[in-house]
Amino acid sequence: MSPGMTPDCYRVVFMYSFKNDYSEGAHPQVLDALSRSNLQQLEGYGLDQHSLDVVARIRELVGDPDASVHLISGGTQTNLIAISSFLRPHEACIAPKTGHIAVHEAGAIEATGHKLLTVETSDGKLTTKHIAPLLKEHHFEHMVKPRLVYISNPTELGTIYSHSELETLYHYCQEHRLLLYLDGARLGSAISVDGSGLDFANIYQNSDGFFIGGTKNGALLGEILVLKNHDMAKEYRYLIKQRGALLAKGRILGIQFAELFRDNLYLQLASHANQTAQHMVKELAQKGCQFHINSPTNQIFPILPTLVIEQLSRSFDFYTWQQLTQDQAVIRLVTSWATPMEQVESFIREYQTAMS
Amino acid sequence: MSPGMTPDCYRVVFMYSFKNDYSEGAHPQVLDALSRSNLQQLEGYGLDQHSLDVVARIRELVGDPDASVHLISGGTQTNLIAISSFLRPHEACIAPKTGHIAVHEAGAIEATGHKLLTVETSDGKLTTKHIAPLLKEHHFEHMVKPRLVYISNPTELGTIYSHSELETLYHYCQEHRLLLYLDGARLGSAISVDGSGLDFANIYQNSDGFFIGGTKNGALLGEILVLKNHDMAKEYRYLIKQRGALLAKGRILGIQFAELFRDNLYLQLASHANQTAQHMVKELAQKGCQFHINSPTNQIFPILPTLVIEQLSRSFDFYTWQQLTQDQAVIRLVTSWATPMEQVESFIREYQTAMS
Amino acid sequence: MSPGMTPDCYRVVFMYSFKNDYSEGAHPQVLDALSRSNLQQLEGYGLDQHSLDVVARIRELVGDPDASVHLISGGTQTNLIAISSFLRPHEACIAPKTGHIAVHEAGAIEATGHKLLTVETSDGKLTTKHIAPLLKEHHFEHMVKPRLVYISNPTELGTIYSHSELETLYHYCQEHRLLLYLDGARLGSAISVDGSGLDFANIYQNSDGFFIGGTKNGALLGEILVLKNHDMAKEYRYLIKQRGALLAKGRILGIQFAELFRDNLYLQLASHANQTAQHMVKELAQKGCQFHINSPTNQIFPILPTLVIEQLSRSFDFYTWQQLTQDQAVIRLVTSWATPMEQVESFIREYQTAMS
Amino acid sequence: MSPGMTPDCYRVVFMYSFKNDYSEGAHPQVLDALSRSNLQQLEGYGLDQHSLDVVARIRELVGDPDASVHLISGGTQTNLIAISSFLRPHEACIAPKTGHIAVHEAGAIEATGHKLLTVETSDGKLTTKHIAPLLKEHHFEHMVKPRLVYISNPTELGTIYSHSELETLYHYCQEHRLLLYLDGARLGSAISVDGSGLDFANIYQNSDGFFIGGTKNGALLGEILVLKNHDMAKEYRYLIKQRGALLAKGRILGIQFAELFRDNLYLQLASHANQTAQHMVKELAQKGCQFHINSPTNQIFPILPTLVIEQLSRSFDFYTWQQLTQDQAVIRLVTSWATPMEQVESFIREYQTAMS
Repeated sequence: MSPGMTPDCYRVVFMYSFKNDYSEGAHPQVLDALSRSNLQQLEGYGLDQHSLDVVARIRELVGDPDASVHLISGGTQTNLIAISSFLRPHEACIAPKTGHIAVHEAGAIEATGHKLLTVETSDGKLTTKHIAPLLKEHHFEHMVKPRLVYISNPTELGTIYSHSELETLYHYCQEHRLLLYLDGARLGSAISVDGSGLDFANIYQNSDGFFIGGTKNGALLGEILVLKNHDMAKEYRYLIKQRGALLAKGRILGIQFAELFRDNLYLQLASHANQTAQHMVKELAQKGCQFHINSPTNQIFPILPTLVIEQLSRSFDFYTWQQLTQDQAVIRLVTSWATPMEQVESFIREYQTAMS
Repeated sequence: MSPGMTPDCYRVVFMYSFKNDYSEGAHPQVLDALSRSNLQQLEGYGLDQHSLDVVARIRELVGDPDASVHLISGGTQTNLIAISSFLRPHEACIAPKTGHIAVHEAGAIEATGHKLLTVETSDGKLTTKHIAPLLKEHHFEHMVKPRLVYISNPTELGTIYSHSELETLYHYCQEHRLLLYLDGARLGSAISVDGSGLDFANIYQNSDGFFIGGTKNGALLGEILVLKNHDMAKEYRYLIKQRGALLAKGRILGIQFAELFRDNLYLQLASHANQTAQHMVKELAQKGCQFHINSPTNQIFPILPTLVIEQLSRSFDFYTWQQLTQDQAVIRLVTSWATPMEQVESFIREYQTAMS
Repeated sequence: MSPGMTPDCYRVVFMYSFKNDYSEGAHPQVLDALSRSNLQQLEGYGLDQHSLDVVARIRELVGDPDASVHLISGGTQTNLIAISSFLRPHEACIAPKTGHIAVHEAGAIEATGHKLLTVETSDGKLTTKHIAPLLKEHHFEHMVKPRLVYISNPTELGTIYSHSELETLYHYCQEHRLLLYLDGARLGSAISVDGSGLDFANIYQNSDGFFIGGTKNGALLGEILVLKNHDMAKEYRYLIKQRGALLAKGRILGIQFAELFRDNLYLQLASHANQTAQHMVKELAQKGCQFHINSPTNQIFPILPTLVIEQLSRSFDFYTWQQLTQDQAVIRLVTSWATPMEQVESFIREYQTAMS
Repeated sequence: MSPGMTPDCYRVVFMYSFKNDYSEGAHPQVLDALSRSNLQQLEGYGLDQHSLDVVARIRELVGDPDASVHLISGGTQTNLIAISSFLRPHEACIAPKTGHIAVHEAGAIEATGHKLLTVETSDGKLTTKHIAPLLKEHHFEHMVKPRLVYISNPTELGTIYSHSELETLYHYCQEHRLLLYLDGARLGSAISVDGSGLDFANIYQNSDGFFIGGTKNGALLGEILVLKNHDMAKEYRYLIKQRGALLAKGRILGIQFAELFRDNLYLQLASHANQTAQHMVKELAQKGCQFHINSPTNQIFPILPTLVIEQLSRSFDFYTWQQLTQDQAVIRLVTSWATPMEQVESFIREYQTAMS
């Protein structure tokens, strides 16, 4: 969520919601898989065959049989385990000011003892230009030592780092003895953007660690943390256990991800999310709508007159992201694997009605 | 798990397992409920109607409309959130040496900054006699300040605190300005023991906080943390979020527990687990078997000749708990809501064969 | 220290230094007191009579016989103990971007688990206008909860909060359930400013805690932490011990502060530091020098041509604070209780020569 | 301090005290050195020439020009910085149950996030026999990973590890991928024991880190942490700063230790402490006194009739360590560099009188 979003907490949702991409349960195939395997007796704590198969499959996808792969329940948990495992006590993490860990994880990283050094960006994307001055400034032991760069791909503003942008950033990190960690809560969406050049293998090659988000792309819960097999990945199950993240019935992660990665389901779902959102972008733009930011993924940010927002709110649920003037505001619309194209069309029609 | 248990990690299970109570998925009704609600759009982060219903239901069961009730994914996570929320930095937690937090949570409590003061017990149960000397010893600021007493009910040895034992302990705690926290990973089993006198309301009255375990009693995952509504329960969702324990799709906890607590399913499942185990106790004892400890719940600890253990191992999976002599060892057998009585009978028959 | 300061670490100082206010040892009276009492056998850990006398004296000065008063070795240590003692795990601390804890304590506060929320200011001073938007933004459990406001008086830029400014800020904090903590590493300097209206009693009344710095004002080491006697001040010696801050020979803090606070020595020393600095301000200004900021205390920030800086550097040691243009920079000059007026005059003369 | 010691906190000491070895200030030479250098302007934060000289001197003494040497104010602080710097989050520290970090540091190590695994010993000394079962027990990721062994030399019971014992222990540690850290709060006393075979160089060779205590052997405050120059010693000044342990006037540590290590003063002082205590042992033993433990250092533990203890208490201050029976108790007597032989003789005479 984001500044300006009013949490509408205790309300039951009666109308169609574009508020986020975690409103539904699991993709039906995933749920079927859970049902089919339900009475199998399996090893606990992620050592069941399903989970082991997922590990093998991800190693295949990233092209490294030694990749360190771990199934964890949620994004904040994954971030706090990963980041704290990379850092010695005095080392800090650089993040864009809009980064999820900086804004919406209730201080989870600092709770592990590490400072975040945040940087203002225009589009949620960190570049070498943002990092260089920080490194210069932090030159001695009275300050923290910047050691890890955190990015999300896509960012919290729906923008993405392309393969070549990621490569440039990682190259810079390696030159400056920085680690690069990528929050992939919506990684499928980034990879599915036309022309991103991204795939699991080159994301792996161009980072020290990243996670593949399941919660927002077809699973009930779960993220896959992937680490290059360096020193910090040793004895990793201890670190996961210590943070309370080693589920006794780890199978529920394994079974779900096995289904999502058996064929290409994971990326198909993400594509659908992107396509529905981008269809909305195209149609709204054609009707004269401006956007707060150009996002090619499943989160989009149209600028609408306040009156139009009010009218649309009667039929759809979404967040107002930022009030620009008395009369205009940015809203955030989020689609997912579960968004029916009819609801998208319906939104576009209502927009047109409201504008006319 | 426990010292002496050899983790048999990477093996797929082909024979019936009495290793633990988290080998299967969810009770079929629970899974059905997940399927039925799967495409509902619901609020995230535990604010969906199912979760809110569970909170209301638990408040009813404990008899306090202001009880602070939270749905969390796993036991270690629940313990670390609860215990760290109760303590100021210099305050410590008293626990039996066999307590789960002391042995099998990979230092999760210490990772939140707090020392555990552990006490040797004969049966996993902490009494006022164990606590008094610790309080006397910790008399000044060069030592930690004991502040919280941790117990599990049932204990890790299958024993239970009855209602009156719990009352005595809590009374002592209150007299000595100690908080009492109860780990209820298998709470249903304790309540279901004949003559325990326990129910949710009197457990609530006789502790400052406790959790009701779902993972080991019919759910895919999930525990319900229940706190009396004192100062420490304020702003609790922040604490849960900060530890990465606020699932985006909190619905998967709400839906499951709504099913388990709609009628009496939760306690019925626990009763089944107890009954299958106690049937085994009765039958094995009749055939001359001795037990390491008298446990009235779903974990039992027969003492068997090594040769018998070997023979039983060909048909059943279980842990060897402790080697007593060259020729004798204690094994642990665990039943669950899912254990078929036929497997129990089959085990008893094999035992008899092996002994003869 | 500050961005732009080049640590000149391994050099022995041969010329007069205006680099900081901790270049010398202790005021001679303080050292005499250490010598006189050297062979007395005294209680350890701050329970010696000298330390107890200091506690009594400070309670008198702040006008509260129940004030919680603690002698601690250094400023960073005092800050980290105090701030972490005030906060529950999810609570955060608001600080100006230039605040010592935010910049120059190597992440000490975050290492205790708490996020700092920093605010850009023009003069190092936090006002209610800076705080209000932060409170509005941090409205729910996905973000940290702002709970403590950190200020330094004087600030790291030499500016001060007057009594009435402090009163306004504290009033606001109380209205918004925020705690106010004041870093007084150079507190004597703030109090000694003409017209500040500050004294120990009104600083105590207008904050929840503050410290009186000794290291930079006549002592070898040591700061006095003063807390209002609320809940958080309970069992405080445990917290000090746990951070390694309870010196076995606590006497060395007690004896020094007893001397500094017997009569008025502490404020006399601070006045001397202010006067030497302000004499420099007056004289340099008369000679046409501009200042980066108007500071009434012992840290001043003249803007000088680069060539003049170079020339002055041959005779005096000081930090270049900020390069403004190719030809101009801000330097920082710091005086102390030990600064001889002759060195000040000598600096002024050299400046005049260099400028002509 | 120790269980059974009643802190006699708020009393001024009027009679001679054998309570501890930190009752006086500094050795006169040390104080003189502080006076002589008092008005020198020196670099801050331990970068003054005196501190640098100490670092060079210690490197010489340990025989490694690359040793990582740091001057820190107190023992608890040194222990918490050192131990936390050695460990990843899931790694634990093995210590004897009587170890200072386990009993009398108010949970300082756990506050950095690490579990202590404590072991019962008869004489405060950890041997490979104590460690082996712990390693065997901690075999998987549900438990912490033992990684560091903590010992004190001398121990809290006055016993020592000889050079060969230390060598055996370190050899075992290296074979088992354990780090060995030695708390040397009274290291001089251990080295000064006849036949110990210990010197600074072989202690350095047979540990991964240790500290040389100043507070209890002639300094006002201060300990010297010495680390072998491996990975964990990198960027160490950041870690010290972050814990609030980098004194602005680091000179007060440098100047004192320069004096203590210029010639042989440090070991001379420790020898005096040992000799006065051992004189007491010899004389008391000759008069029939039994001892709780055989300690060759400056802490001794005679067993005395209660009535004798009462009588001695009228003239001397000391702790009762442990009540053995109604009529008998162990007392602890501690001598130091400052203990006059006359007080020792006087104690022996009073003992004889009381016994007759």
